[in-house]
Formats: sequence, structure tokens, C-alpha cells
Amino acid sequence: MNTAAVMTALGCIELQQRPMPQAATGAAIVKVHAVGVCGSDTTYYRHGRIGDWVVEGDIILGHEAAGEVVEVGDGVTEIEVGDRVAIEPGTPCRQCTQCQAGRYHLCPDLVFLATPPYDGALVQYIALDARTLFPIPDIMTYEQAAMVEPLSVGLWGCQRAALRPGDDVLVTGAGPVGILAAQAARALGARTVTISDVAPFRLEFARALGITVEGVSSPPQERFDVLLECSGAPGVLATGMDRLREAGRAAMIGLPKESVELPVSFLNKNEVSLALVNRYQNTWPLGISLIASGRVSVDDLQTHSFSLEDTATALEIGACDRRSLKAIIYPQDVRGTAVRTDY
Amino acid sequence: MNTAAVMTALGCIELQQRPMPQAATGAAIVKVHAVGVCGSDTTYYRHGRIGDWVVEGDIILGHEAAGEVVEVGDGVTEIEVGDRVAIEPGTPCRQCTQCQAGRYHLCPDLVFLATPPYDGALVQYIALDARTLFPIPDIMTYEQAAMVEPLSVGLWGCQRAALRPGDDVLVTGAGPVGILAAQAARALGARTVTISDVAPFRLEFARALGITVEGVSSPPQERFDVLLECSGAPGVLATGMDRLREAGRAAMIGLPKESVELPVSFLNKNEVSLALVNRYQNTWPLGISLIASGRVSVDDLQTHSFSLEDTATALEIGACDRRSLKAIIYPQDVRGTAVRTDY
Amino acid sequence: MNTAAVMTALGCIELQQRPMPQAATGAAIVKVHAVGVCGSDTTYYRHGRIGDWVVEGDIILGHEAAGEVVEVGDGVTEIEVGDRVAIEPGTPCRQCTQCQAGRYHLCPDLVFLATPPYDGALVQYIALDARTLFPIPDIMTYEQAAMVEPLSVGLWGCQRAALRPGDDVLVTGAGPVGILAAQAARALGARTVTISDVAPFRLEFARALGITVEGVSSPPQERFDVLLECSGAPGVLATGMDRLREAGRAAMIGLPKESVELPVSFLNKNEVSLALVNRYQNTWPLGISLIASGRVSVDDLQTHSFSLEDTATALEIGACDRRSLKAIIYPQDVRGTAVRTDY
Amino acid sequence: MNTAAVMTALGCIELQQRPMPQAATGAAIVKVHAVGVCGSDTTYYRHGRIGDWVVEGDIILGHEAAGEVVEVGDGVTEIEVGDRVAIEPGTPCRQCTQCQAGRYHLCPDLVFLATPPYDGALVQYIALDARTLFPIPDIMTYEQAAMVEPLSVGLWGCQRAALRPGDDVLVTGAGPVGILAAQAARALGARTVTISDVAPFRLEFARALGITVEGVSSPPQERFDVLLECSGAPGVLATGMDRLREAGRAAMIGLPKESVELPVSFLNKNEVSLALVNRYQNTWPLGISLIASGRVSVDDLQTHSFSLEDTATALEIGACDRRSLKAIIYPQDVRGTAVRTDY
Repeated sequence: MNTAAVMTALGCIELQQRPMPQAATGAAIVKVHAVGVCGSDTTYYRHGRIGDWVVEGDIILGHEAAGEVVEVGDGVTEIEVGDRVAIEPGTPCRQCTQCQAGRYHLCPDLVFLATPPYDGALVQYIALDARTLFPIPDIMTYEQAAMVEPLSVGLWGCQRAALRPGDDVLVTGAGPVGILAAQAARALGARTVTISDVAPFRLEFARALGITVEGVSSPPQERFDVLLECSGAPGVLATGMDRLREAGRAAMIGLPKESVELPVSFLNKNEVSLALVNRYQNTWPLGISLIASGRVSVDDLQTHSFSLEDTATALEIGACDRRSLKAIIYPQDVRGTAVRTDY
Repeated sequence: MNTAAVMTALGCIELQQRPMPQAATGAAIVKVHAVGVCGSDTTYYRHGRIGDWVVEGDIILGHEAAGEVVEVGDGVTEIEVGDRVAIEPGTPCRQCTQCQAGRYHLCPDLVFLATPPYDGALVQYIALDARTLFPIPDIMTYEQAAMVEPLSVGLWGCQRAALRPGDDVLVTGAGPVGILAAQAARALGARTVTISDVAPFRLEFARALGITVEGVSSPPQERFDVLLECSGAPGVLATGMDRLREAGRAAMIGLPKESVELPVSFLNKNEVSLALVNRYQNTWPLGISLIASGRVSVDDLQTHSFSLEDTATALEIGACDRRSLKAIIYPQDVRGTAVRTDY
Repeated sequence: MNTAAVMTALGCIELQQRPMPQAATGAAIVKVHAVGVCGSDTTYYRHGRIGDWVVEGDIILGHEAAGEVVEVGDGVTEIEVGDRVAIEPGTPCRQCTQCQAGRYHLCPDLVFLATPPYDGALVQYIALDARTLFPIPDIMTYEQAAMVEPLSVGLWGCQRAALRPGDDVLVTGAGPVGILAAQAARALGARTVTISDVAPFRLEFARALGITVEGVSSPPQERFDVLLECSGAPGVLATGMDRLREAGRAAMIGLPKESVELPVSFLNKNEVSLALVNRYQNTWPLGISLIASGRVSVDDLQTHSFSLEDTATALEIGACDRRSLKAIIYPQDVRGTAVRTDY
Repeated sequence: MNTAAVMTALGCIELQQRPMPQAATGAAIVKVHAVGVCGSDTTYYRHGRIGDWVVEGDIILGHEAAGEVVEVGDGVTEIEVGDRVAIEPGTPCRQCTQCQAGRYHLCPDLVFLATPPYDGALVQYIALDARTLFPIPDIMTYEQAAMVEPLSVGLWGCQRAALRPGDDVLVTGAGPVGILAAQAARALGARTVTISDVAPFRLEFARALGITVEGVSSPPQERFDVLLECSGAPGVLATGMDRLREAGRAAMIGLPKESVELPVSFLNKNEVSLALVNRYQNTWPLGISLIASGRVSVDDLQTHSFSLEDTATALEIGACDRRSLKAIIYPQDVRGTAVRTDY
């Protein structure tokens, strides 16, 4: 039995039985224990597409995942049965120019969980390239391991922004990605980290993590070295870049639906720069270390828990409940009432 | 007698006598021999402003200049009377955070020739901070020395774009700045340099310098590592960035009048980046070396020559004559008919 | 009354009265509350020289210092009377090529506390360039503020080694500098930090801070991305560099007395690199932030406390007591028995 | 018939017939037209080893090679029969951590021509991974194409030294590698390039290429930003690094037989750094472009020409004739008297 939560049409999730996967050479079978719900999952569920990626036919969602290795194929040496692992959702071809250049995340043939036409991790057992599985220490929970994925977005965003020790950092948008990006910046040596949002609830959450917050009523005044744009809201990039100091650097993490207007004739005065961001690379070992050592705190981000049967509800939560941050689905708990558990 | 070409109103240039300047401590007096006309000179002449810089009252234009040192003040050790020099037009405060950080070009108190309220170099004798004067070798002409300024724009643009040895470079816009930026890219180790423009005349000029050209009838196909946007035309930045390879880097050298639209939701796929550019820093020694050694060729850029009396004509040439590239004004030739001379 | 601990001959410290300093333009008077003892202080005290720096005549030692601003000169705007400050011991000329290039720490005219011929901070009141004084938050003690100096050595060493997020770091030598360098590496995003030493006591100390330790009986096996050599012991650099992975980077923080032998014909295989290190630059704001936020822990480093009268004993402790890490001298406590106090 | 020059014992070269190679999938057969003799070839010929690489049994030498593609295997798309190509001598595994990180030259399983146990290019026909073959333009000779290999050493050395536009560069050692490294530095934007050697003949050669030279009788005085050590002579690295400016960078290209002594306690003052160098990566496209465009001049480096039969003489020339720079062997000219020919 290998139960999967399958999206069969817009807004429709159905439990289905899938064959037990086989561990091919270099691959491993993971028993999936925790899957975080991402905004992209919700967007596919509600709209069926993100940019050029269009859902056609059935698809299994979910790409923030962790579980236990239950079988390994030939030639797998780095991991073994019984390992508890965080899953990096992208498998590159490892042959193309980008892969050979150390930029596997830009591989044109990247197979990425829950990105059409590829299925994701909302299933009990999944076969994955063993090199995308990273063992976690005993003290780390599966929920924490699943959070390595959104944390990776922040870690790589910091690198794209060429964050330097001592920088003052502004994060715009205090959703899960923004909060993790803010913590990532701090863990990489930012001197100060300020986060802005329009939702007081989110700012309170950030403040409790020791991050300086800035809301609609606190007029912005300072200047920053680095901007991590995590809101995706129109206009935020331009106003954020305008708040950068000379030689400031912005990374565009949140992706707006449309084009962005940049007042370059003004921004050039301070000679700022902008790096676009496409996911991440080589962040799992560090992400695991940061969470396991407590340098990044993720536990309180989990505001909701669901069994596999309740996947549809979990996907709606992200879109509708403004006080939600991160919902975790437990695929091994098919029909129960999931509660958060530290395995 | 110190004759200056003074802009007294929009579109009005008048020869006036100014007092002979005195060489204060750390300063030198330069007898100005050649001044290139830049698009910004023409814009001030015709419109009286560029962004926040507004001409109020009389102003002397011209900032691409070279001449001979005729007097030095106390404490000047690097240069001496008789030195032929290229002039860097900006004098920073050398005290502020930016100056101390190695970014003097972003000094908020930068005194820049021909940028309101500061007078420029269209005058026979000018006092300048000796540290902005760079001796040129005997084999170099004053006209070549004046070209170090627009070449500097290209050199610094290449650095802002993090040009790496072996990069394939696209330069958009084949005016003087674009042509010099293309040569700068080649001199810094670009593997290939392609330049695009709508004007066949300019493309022919570039082709003669060994640069690959691309016009409206040659459909663009390849992808590049680096984009140097030198046209300032609306939309060119976005289409240029779309032609970059994975991890490509763009520098915005030409400044459009308005905001620029960036289709970030598309550009992020290749994880490209954009650096805004504000003039240059520390480029004179290299610029002199590149021109003196023939690695950058500037002589043919000079399409027009004028005496000081004909400054107004020179300024109009840039705006009206589509076949002009660079006009040089000879301040020592007040009322003659200037011809290009190698001193 | 302005009592100073003056080194009058090798191994001789004498309390003397010095005039109260005046706050010149741009300067401030600091009432010194805490001064850490550094190995260089001990070396001057015992041997009278370090390399080309030779003590001639009387000198006041001490350069790891913190205190309270009691007077400010004209033109001082960033700090005010009553501010509690950490002191950066070097004052650059701010005029030379190095200063203007953003490398003030390499200024040939750097005035550095307790480096002959300049006096240091083991005095009750001292006049300093206000730009070398950095206010600390209320929650931070003077002892912690004094530790920003040795922490800065580690922070800058990490930057010289081009530490990148996720790197595995080896620190050789677990003295105060090594322990702070290890914590700096962790605070700047190292994935793992391992420290080695021959003294079990020091390793225990490091282990208590959560750093992986490696002693003489734990045979080294892994390979690292970054080496921070903090021992200064002969041969440690070469064996440390031999333990680096491909493209690994070493920074030489501890300075051996003599030349170092590098087996380049072997090291070149992995294409490693070595950066020499001369103090630090621009580290005080970050250092204060790291200590104040608890990201770097310094309190337990203080193993000894002394009044100003006991300066000689404090200087000997560093050389003779193998279980000492950091001694703090309290200049305001001239003849009492100092105990550690949180002001 | 596929004649090869085989080293059968120390100092012994014998012509042998080898089977015609077959073009496996992804491979191509190259008819070898020109092979440069490198110091490493001579060392294997005379001493049988370089470091850990030991010649056991027969070996074919030669790794600076160019030729014509005469057959391609399945799946080869980038090149075709008839292409004239420069050969990159190393074929990486493309699977390991180093290959995936963009550092294929550090691949532990690198197959490198003429490095034991792998045969080299002194043979008429050779099978090679098609991705190591780079087409050259019609205007380029095979001799020039073979020079891309030693030029690559210089190009990568410049990158390892983080050469920046405008740097003043010192090259120590004016053998073929030093001369090409000097030209590489100039082609990558060095402001000035100075080369030193003890042999007046080599200095004359460099001077003719427009490089500033410095011999034993011209006392060194200036300071440089970058050192490219190409002599491999004992002590040159240390004295060269001592001539670097603040924040200067050295790359160790020439490899001494033994350890190198570094006076770190002195060098740290200027905070210089040292990068070790292991061959090169991704330099062929740029190298071809630099030679084809004339930005790097290689023709006069060829001081000697030999037929395949005269391989032994060619190998001895490098060791014995102090006025030789580069000998080229022509494998298609088995028993003739080779003369340099532009194909």
C-alpha cells in the first residue's frame, strides 16, 4: 500500500493507491514523514499553473519533505537504510554545462518535486536520487528537516545578494520565506536584520525571534546594505532598493506575477545592484546544521498539522488563513487527526 | 587673459574673460588643450537639467579634458610643471564613509566638472586638485587623453558587470560610450564582443574596429555572459537581459529618462543580475595605458573639431548630426578654425 | 589625577601620574574601565620588541579596551558624553592610498595603542579619535566590550580566508584568539567548526562552547574548506593546509617568529590558497552585535581580574599560567582587589 | 599505419606502430599535426617522474597538441570531421564533487595526456573525448593552436591571482610559460607588466613583445599588485611576494622541487596572499580567441621544429639549449626534416 494525495483537477485532492516504488541504481526509497505546504503548492492547486509550468492531468504536490530511508539501490554509499533524511527536491542531470559549472540549480533538465510534469512528496513512499537525501542528526525532527527547503531559499538569497559580515539587512515580507531569510541573514553574519510587512501578526512573530520589525506605522528611515525582497508584492522591490546605501545589493526572492518597474535613473546614484534568484544550490548541509544547532529557529513556524486525507484543507489554509505560517502534512497518518510529533 | 565658453542661458554660449586661477595647496593649474563634448553637455545646453542637477545662472560646460600643467601649489609632489595630463573630472572629499571605503565616486560631496553648480573645462586655464591629474606619455595626444573619460565609463561598467576572462559580451548602443565599452570589454579579456545599434553608420564604425556587429536585420540568437547597456533607450535593458545566459550579468551604463520595466518573473529563471552604474573610479591609469599601448583605439572617434568660439556649434552637433561620434573643442584656439593636431 | 601603569623597563611596571588628556577637535576622552591583556602586551613586557617594533623608553601597554566617554571635542557628532564604548585601537591617517582604498588597517601611519612608540590604554583617562569609539548597548559589559578586539582578529581572519556559508572550518590553536576565531566562523555561517590544540584544558573550554575539538590523541582525518591558523607554532600552517580540500583557503592569524616552510609542490595539487592577515578592519559594529546578541560567547574567557596596580602580575599570567585565557585589568580600580563586575 | 614516438626507457624514444584508434561514443579521432614540447615532457624523458607521477613501462609524451578531426563517434554534435582543433589535454570524469562544482581540473580521476599512466599526443592519430576539442578559425595555424595549452597556464594563473583591471603585474621567469603569462596578464587588463629573468636572451625576447623587462643589473624598486611566479627557482616566490603592494596577490605557477620558505612574519604586514595553481580550467575558448585576434603573440616562441623521428632531439633541446623557447614536433612528418608550416 502506498497512499498518495493526488490533485486530480483544480481544487480537487483525492487519495489514491500508487505502486510501491523500486530503488533503481543510485536511488533510495524514502518513507515520507513530513511535508510542508508551500505557496506554490497552493497556487497549483487553485490555478493549475505558475508561469510556464502548467499542470496537465494528475499531479502529486509537496516538495518540502523529510522521511526515513527504507531501501537503497545499487551503488548508493553515502546513505543507508534507517537514515532519517531531509530531501532536496531537485535532481539535476549532472551532465550539462550548468551542472558542470557548479550551478546545478539552473540545469535545464532539473527534475523538481511537484513541478509539472513531476510528482511531489505527498505520498507514503517515494524513490529519489540518493544524492538528494541528507541525513539529519537524532535531535532533529522531521518537521525541522522539512523546513530546510524554505530556509534554503533564504540562504541562497543571501548569497545572491553577496551578504557580507556586518551588513545591515532589510527583509521585505514576513511570511515563512521572509522569516527564514531574516534568520538566514543573521546566521550568515548580518549585523542587524529588519523585517517589514503589512500584517501585525507576522511582525509579532518575527519580533519574538529577535528580529527588528517595521510596520506600516513605523516610518522607514534607515538605509541598508542588503535587501531581501520576499513579498512578491508590486512595487516593494523598487521602494526597497531605494532604501539601500551606496553599493547596496538586492536579491529578488519573492516573485511578482508581472513585470517590475525600476526607477533606474534614480537608483544608479547609489550604484546598487539586483540579483534575481531561482531556488537554491548546495544549501542542505548548512541548513541542517543551522536548524540542528538552534542558530535558526523553525519550530514555531508550524501553525497547522494535517493528515494526508486533509491535504485539501492544508492547501486552502495557506491561501485563506492569514494567521497561518506553515502547515505540515504527515503522509504516514493517512486518515487520523495529525498532531505534531517529534519522532 | 583666461577665456571661457560660458553657457548663459538655454542654448546660449558666450565667450567671457575669467580671472587666472591660483594654485592652492594641493592643487595645480592646467592649460586646457582638448575637451570632448559629451551628451550630458548637450543636455544641459538644451534642457538645463539632468535629473536633480539643474543649471542655475552661468555655467561652463565640458568634463572630458586634457591639458598641460603650468603651475603647482604647495604640497604637490606627484606632478610637476610641464606634465601633460589627462583630467579626471571628479574631486571627492576624501573624508566621508564612501571615500574611506574605496568608493570615492559615490562621495555625496563630489565636485564634478560641468555638473551644476560646478563649472567645467571649456576654459583656457583651470585649477584642479593635483590628485585628479594623470600624466600621459609623450606618444599620447591631448585628444586621446580627453577620451580617457568616456573610456572610463566603459571600463567601470565592465567591472560593475563583473566581467570575467572569456566572457561573451553584448554591448547595446554603438555611440561613443558603447564603442569604448566594447573595446574596454575586449581589453579586459572578453572572448567575444558583439555590439548592436539601429544606425548602420555606427555599426560600420564598430565593425572597422574588429567588433562583431548586429543590426535590426540580423536577428539576435546567441546568448551572452555580460550585457553592457549603453543606449539608454526604453526597453533595451529588458530585451538585453533576456539574451543573457544562466548567471549572466548586466550593467546599466546608458541612463533612460524614465523607469525601466523588468520582466523579473521571466529573468529569474536564468538567475541573471543587474548592476547600476554611477560614473567610474580608479580608471585613469588603466585608461591611459590602454590607449597609449593601442589596446583601445580612439582616434577615429573624433569626427569633429572646434575652436572655443564654436562651442555652441559643437554642442549642437552631438544632438543633431547623426553621423557625429565625438567632437573635440580646443580652448587654446579661441577664434581660429581648429584642426586636429597632435601636440 | 590620571594614574597609568607604565612599563619603565623590561619586566617593570610602575604606577605614574599623567596629565588629564584634552579633547581636541574630533577626539573624545574615555574613562577606561576594562583592558584585556594580549600576548603582544606580554611580549613587549618580557622582550621589549615584536619584529620591527621596539620599545624605547617608557610605554603604557594595553589595547583591548572599553570605557565611558566623559568629554568630547569640537566636531564630534556620533558619540556623546555618557556613552559606554568599545575602543578600536588603531587610528589611521584617513588620507593615504590605503585609507582611501578601504584598507585603513594597512595605513603606513596607523597610530595603534600600545605599539611603540604609541602608548596604550592601561590608564584611567585617554584621548582618542572619536571615530574609533563604538557605543555598546546597556546589556553589554565593559569586559565584553574589551573582547571585541580579539574577536575582531577572528572576524577579519574569516574574511581573509573568504569564508563562505556552509564551509567546514579548522581552527588550529585554542587560545583566546583561536576560540574567538572559531566562534566567529560559526557566526558567519560555517557549517562545522573544529578546533585543535595540544592543551586538553583549552580543548575542554572549546568543547563547552559547542565547538568540535581535536587533540593529540584524536587522529585527524577529515578535510576542510577553511583553515584559520591561530597557534603561531612552527609547522602548523603546513600541516593544516595539507588538510584542506580542493580550493581550500587558509588564513594565517597566529604569527610565527620565523619563516614558514610550505610544501608547495604538494599543496598545489588541491589548488589551495593562503592569505596573510594584519589585524582587522571594520569589525567593531559586527563584533559588538555578535557579543550583545549572544551569538558569540566571551564571558567565560575571562579567567583572571586585576587592579591597575597588579598590571605586572596580569602580564605574567599570560606567559606563565597555562590555564589562563584572558586577564582583564580594571584601571579605575587602582589599588583595590579587582573582582569582575558588570557595570 | 599509426606511428608513435614512444619513450621506452629513460632517455630513449623509439618509433612504434600503434593500432588506429576507434571513435567511441562521445569521442573523436584527431590527426595530430603539431605538438609542443613542455618542460614536463623533458623531465619525464630524463628522470622518469614528476612528484608522485612515475613512468612505468612505455609512455607516449606530448600534451600541447593540435590537429584535425578525422572521425567522430556517436553522440558527438559540437564538432565534425574536418574541424581543425586545439586539444585540451585533460579529460575529467564529469561525475565527482570537483567536476560538479565547476572545478573539473581538480578531478581526482582526471585523464591527462602524457601524465603516467596515460599516453600523450606524439602519435599520428589519437582518440579523445570530443568535449576536449576546440575548433580554431581558418586563420590560425596548428602551431598556434598547440600554444593554447601553455597560454592556458598563464590565463588561469592570472585568475588564481585574482588579477583586476589596472593591476601592475610582475612575472618572474621569462621562459615560455612566463612570457605567455605576461601576455595573458596584459590581455586581461593589467596596466603594466614587468618580467624578470637571469637570462638576457629571454629578456630581449620579452622586450620585443612590449613587456617591460628587469634583469640582474636593473635593481628592482617598484611594488606590484600581482606576482605570477613562473620560474620555479628557489627563493623567487619569497622575494617576489616581498615586492607586492598592500593586499597584493601572488600565484605560484612554476613549481619548485622542494618546499618554499615564506617569511610570513614580514609578509603579513602588507596582507598579501598566495594562490597555488594546478594547471587550468575553461581557458581554451579564450586562449584561441586571444591568439587568433593577435592579442597574444605566440609565433616567435617557436624556436625549433622537428619531425616525429627527431622527438628525442626535441626533448633534449629544452633541457640543453638555453636559447630555445618552444620546440614543435610534427607527427605527420615521420621521417622528413620538418619545417614550420602554416597549414
